[in-house]
Amino acid sequence: MSPAIQLFHCRDSRSFRVLWALEELELPYGLELMQFPPRVFVKGYRDVNPLGTVPAVLVDGQLMTESAAIPHYLATRFGPSDLAVAPHEPGYAAYLNFLHMGEATLTFPQTIHLRYTMLEPPERRVAQAAEDYAQWFGSRLRNAELMLDGDYAAAGRFTMADISVGYAVMLAQSIGLEAQVTPGMAAYLDRLSQRPAFQRAKAAQGSQAGETNPLG
Amino acid sequence: MSPAIQLFHCRDSRSFRVLWALEELELPYGLELMQFPPRVFVKGYRDVNPLGTVPAVLVDGQLMTESAAIPHYLATRFGPSDLAVAPHEPGYAAYLNFLHMGEATLTFPQTIHLRYTMLEPPERRVAQAAEDYAQWFGSRLRNAELMLDGDYAAAGRFTMADISVGYAVMLAQSIGLEAQVTPGMAAYLDRLSQRPAFQRAKAAQGSQAGETNPLG
Repeated sequence: MSPAIQLFHCRDSRSFRVLWALEELELPYGLELMQFPPRVFVKGYRDVNPLGTVPAVLVDGQLMTESAAIPHYLATRFGPSDLAVAPHEPGYAAYLNFLHMGEATLTFPQTIHLRYTMLEPPERRVAQAAEDYAQWFGSRLRNAELMLDGDYAAAGRFTMADISVGYAVMLAQSIGLEAQVTPGMAAYLDRLSQRPAFQRAKAAQGSQAGETNPLG
Repeated sequence: MSPAIQLFHCRDSRSFRVLWALEELELPYGLELMQFPPRVFVKGYRDVNPLGTVPAVLVDGQLMTESAAIPHYLATRFGPSDLAVAPHEPGYAAYLNFLHMGEATLTFPQTIHLRYTMLEPPERRVAQAAEDYAQWFGSRLRNAELMLDGDYAAAGRFTMADISVGYAVMLAQSIGLEAQVTPGMAAYLDRLSQRPAFQRAKAAQGSQAGETNPLG
């Protein structure tokens, strides 16, 4: 029997990782498309997710909220799937490392930039913090590129780690951090975005593969 | 045969998670104790870890750099160990979620506070950003507490997810964010710090269980 999966999602926000993962796995799911930020616009959302953040995913009633954890969870819980790397495979260390790095190291700094250039009202914007974390992101991304395994993050094939890292690049290109994205990482995202599951995920949220607007 | 494990560590920094995990698993390891931040003080460190961050771990020559990924890697690669939760167990979703949350949601915001209150020279400190992310951390931590499974993060037992979350609480108490730590989460860390492996990890870096100074 298929699990009952419900995804609470804002277009092109971190929850896009989960939407993309669900499409890669071809799992059935229900999609709640919400306006960003949902803690402001969606009454009762804190009853679903006390953190007030996206994603929230309910899988047979169990809540998950971490966008890099969920794709790995889905692949290992409802697999076996080669979208996860197994402990006995040589790429396992790199896989887990990039799975975490995509969010903890490559996405969070961008949210500081986003906050202090766009989300806060003008009198609360902080140019120095925005610029500090743009630089911080850029240096970590350039070094992450050195750690890739050929065309992919790990194991020489597309995995959930690419969803984690690829989303970070996609976000950067949509919030004014294009200058921090190297040609190599832009080409990496281009490759990933050719995947039919990526395009189905974009269509499911009502946008095109080339459009990204996490505030829309 | 035991794996060859080398940990590059700064006292009480994020790499403490790895030291603690190694002690929990009773794996043999070599410890390189460095002054923080190592990219400034340790010549050649970029040759080990191009990111310049801690932790860096070499396991049979393979590099890992993400402090929440490594404990899970060690438990699943060199287990079986009940320090990880397996995909068929009911606590698996919560385990992975807290494993990621400890770093991505509960530690990164603290580093912004730390940067703009202590690490930057006085003229580059940004009180607003420091305070914004102190509040941000506090709200996420209070909500994380609601998601715990009894005394632990997941599966009703101590796991690597507790190392991820517990370190975030330990850091908060050492960088001026005590006011954001609820009594419940302070008690949670107290429980964790009674573990013999936690105390061995503190001793291995030359400090006591009750002392935390990530800048020392």
